Amino acid sequence: MRGHEQAIRRAIEEVEAVGPLEAAAMAATGDILDSLTKPPGSLGRLESLAIWLAGVTGEARPTVQRRAIVVAAADHGVTRQGVSAYPPEVTAQMVANFLDGGAAINVLASGVGASVTVLDVGVAGVIPRRSSTARGGGRLVDLRIRPGTDDFTLGPAMTLAEAIEAVAAGLALVDDLRSDGTDLIGVGEMGIGNTTAASALTAAMTGSAAASVTGFGTGIDDGTRARKIAVIEAALDRHRPDPADPLGVLAAVGGLEIGALVGVILGAVGARIPVVLDGFITGAAALVAASLAHGVTPRLLAAHRSLEPGHRIVLERLGLEPLLDLQMRLGEGTGAALAIGLIDAAVAIRDGMATFASAAVSGRSGSPVA
Amino acid sequence: MRGHEQAIRRAIEEVEAVGPLEAAAMAATGDILDSLTKPPGSLGRLESLAIWLAGVTGEARPTVQRRAIVVAAADHGVTRQGVSAYPPEVTAQMVANFLDGGAAINVLASGVGASVTVLDVGVAGVIPRRSSTARGGGRLVDLRIRPGTDDFTLGPAMTLAEAIEAVAAGLALVDDLRSDGTDLIGVGEMGIGNTTAASALTAAMTGSAAASVTGFGTGIDDGTRARKIAVIEAALDRHRPDPADPLGVLAAVGGLEIGALVGVILGAVGARIPVVLDGFITGAAALVAASLAHGVTPRLLAAHRSLEPGHRIVLERLGLEPLLDLQMRLGEGTGAALAIGLIDAAVAIRDGMATFASAAVSGRSGSPVA
Repeated sequence: MRGHEQAIRRAIEEVEAVGPLEAAAMAATGDILDSLTKPPGSLGRLESLAIWLAGVTGEARPTVQRRAIVVAAADHGVTRQGVSAYPPEVTAQMVANFLDGGAAINVLASGVGASVTVLDVGVAGVIPRRSSTARGGGRLVDLRIRPGTDDFTLGPAMTLAEAIEAVAAGLALVDDLRSDGTDLIGVGEMGIGNTTAASALTAAMTGSAAASVTGFGTGIDDGTRARKIAVIEAALDRHRPDPADPLGVLAAVGGLEIGALVGVILGAVGARIPVVLDGFITGAAALVAASLAHGVTPRLLAAHRSLEPGHRIVLERLGLEPLLDLQMRLGEGTGAALAIGLIDAAVAIRDGMATFASAAVSGRSGSPVA
Repeated sequence: MRGHEQAIRRAIEEVEAVGPLEAAAMAATGDILDSLTKPPGSLGRLESLAIWLAGVTGEARPTVQRRAIVVAAADHGVTRQGVSAYPPEVTAQMVANFLDGGAAINVLASGVGASVTVLDVGVAGVIPRRSSTARGGGRLVDLRIRPGTDDFTLGPAMTLAEAIEAVAAGLALVDDLRSDGTDLIGVGEMGIGNTTAASALTAAMTGSAAASVTGFGTGIDDGTRARKIAVIEAALDRHRPDPADPLGVLAAVGGLEIGALVGVILGAVGARIPVVLDGFITGAAALVAASLAHGVTPRLLAAHRSLEPGHRIVLERLGLEPLLDLQMRLGEGTGAALAIGLIDAAVAIRDGMATFASAAVSGRSGSPVA
C-alpha cells in the first residue's frame, strides 16, 4: 500500500508540473487553421479540437495515431439490492465478449483504429472466454484486486487501501501504454451496478440530491429506479462521505473500475496524453481525479452527453461541454470511440487542406493572395 | 423548358409513389439491433440511424458503400449589395479548390470514402484550375445555366424557366449517380452570397421575419448583417413571394445552386437513396423540395445544426433533429461528411456485433441465452 500511495502522490505531482494548456502551441495551430481555405473558425468545434490537442501535447501538429481505449471492469456488491436490469454475471460475460471482439466497443474502436485494453480490477468470477484467437478482440490486463466491491448499503464498498490500489492499477496501465507509444487514450468501463456507484459518488462529490443524479441505467423500470435512489440515499446517510476526501468517497460508495479510471486519467494527464472521457461513469472518475490534482479538467475531452441525468451534473461541475449528444447510454467507451473519429477529422483538416495562398483563393479583403 | 418541367413532374410522382418509410424493414433492423450484446436502444441515435436506413431503402441491412457528396455551386447577384465578407470571385476559386482536392469537403469526404461531385449550375466566370491531376480532387459536372443570378433587390433572381432548369440539373445529376450505383448522397453547396438567398427563401417559405433568419454568414460584422437584413426585407417587399408556389419563391429570391439541390433531393428521395443534408443552404433547398412533393422529409437526415440562426427555423419547419451540433458554418457538405461517419458507425454496429446468443451473455431476465 505504501508503494501505491507513493505512485499516486507522484502522479499528482506530475499532473501539477504539467501546468495549464500550452498557449504557444495552441496559437500556432490557430494560425495554421486560419491560413486554410475556409472562413476563420467556420469549422467550429473541429477547429477547437485541433487547438486542444496542441494545448495538451505542446505541439502544433501532434500525431494521435496510436490510440487506446481502456475499458476498466469490476463488479459491485450493491447489485444485491436489485438495482440493475441485468444479473452481475454479465460483467464477466461482457469482458469475455470484449476479448472476443463482439461488443459495441470492439466495433467502434476498430472503426477508428483504436486498440481495446480491458483492465480487470475487480470482476467477480472467471472470465468465460469463447475464443482465444478472436479478430478485433481486446487485450486483458489482469490487475484484479478483489472479486467486486462489498454492498455499500452495509459497509464501505472497499477499504481505503483497495481504493488506492485501484487507482494505482490505472496508473500502472498508463505506464505500460506510454512505453508502447500510445498518444491518445479513450476511457470506458464495464460493471453491472456501476451507474448506482457513479450516482452515489456524484451525489457525494457535488452535494446533489440522489434523485437528481440517478437514472435508468441499462434500462430499469420506475420502481427499480425508486429503489436505486433509496439505496443511494441510505448509503450516503450511512457513510456521510466527505467530498474534500475524494479517495474516501471512492472507497465508501465508488467502484474498483472507477478507481482504476481515476488512475488512468491522472496518469495520462501527467504524460500530456489527450484523454477522451466516455459517459457518466468515466465522468464520475474525472470528478475524483480533478479533486486530487489541479489542472486535470482542461486536458479532458467529454465525448458525449449520456442519457444518465447524473452525467449532466458531472459535466457542469467539470465545466466540460460534450462533443456529441446522441442519446447513448451504453458505456464501454463507445462515445469516446465516436469522438476519436471527430478528432481524426480535426487532424485531417489541420494537415490536409490547401491554404489561401497555395490555392490562390482571395481572402476577406478581396485581394488575391497568391 | 417543357422537358425540364416534365422531368420535375415525373420526379414528384416518383417521390410520392415511394410512400412512407418501410415499416417491415425498420422492424427487421430493430430486431437485429435488439439481439446484439447491449441493452436495447442503448446506442441511441446510432440505432435510429440504422433503422432509418432500413426505412428509406426497404432493406434490413442496406449497404451504403458508394457515397457521393454533391456540391452545387453558383453565384449571386445580390453580392453587389455588399452582403458578404468575401468577394464573389471566391466561388469560382473555391470550385477550383474542390477540383484540386484542397478544400475542407475534400478532406472530410475522403475520410469517409465519399466522392465529391461539383455541380456548376451558375458560377460566374472561368474556374481557375491549378492542377488537372489532383489526388483526392472532385469531379466537375458543368450544367451551368447562367453566370450567377441577378441582384434580387432589383428584380427576380432568375426567371421561372431558369429555376426549373436548375432543379432539372439536380435531377439529371442524380440519374447519373444512380447509374453509377450510388447508394448514399450527401448534399452541400458553394456560392458567395448564398446565405442571403437562403435567408430570403426561408423567410418567404416560413413567414419568419428577415432578422430572425439572417446570420453572420462567412463572418460579416454587425453593420453588414444589418444591411443584409434590410436587403432581404426589401426583396421580400418587392417580390411578395408566395410560399404556396415554391418554384416561384426560388426564382424570386433563391439561387441556382439551391434549385439544383432541390432537384438532387427530389431525385434521391424518389430513388430510395438516403439523403444527408448539410447546413442552412441545403436545409432551405429541402424546404422547397418538401413543399413540392409529399414524403420527402422522413427520407432526409439533418447532419448538423449550423450556427446560422435560419437553420434552426428550417429544421423546426422540416421537423428534423440534427445529429451533430459542432458550431460549424462552412457549408460545402462538411457537416454531411461527418454525419456519414456516424452512419458508418451505425452500420458497423448493426453488422459487426455479437448477439446475446452467440456470445453467451445473459439477458435481462438473468437466464443465460446460449
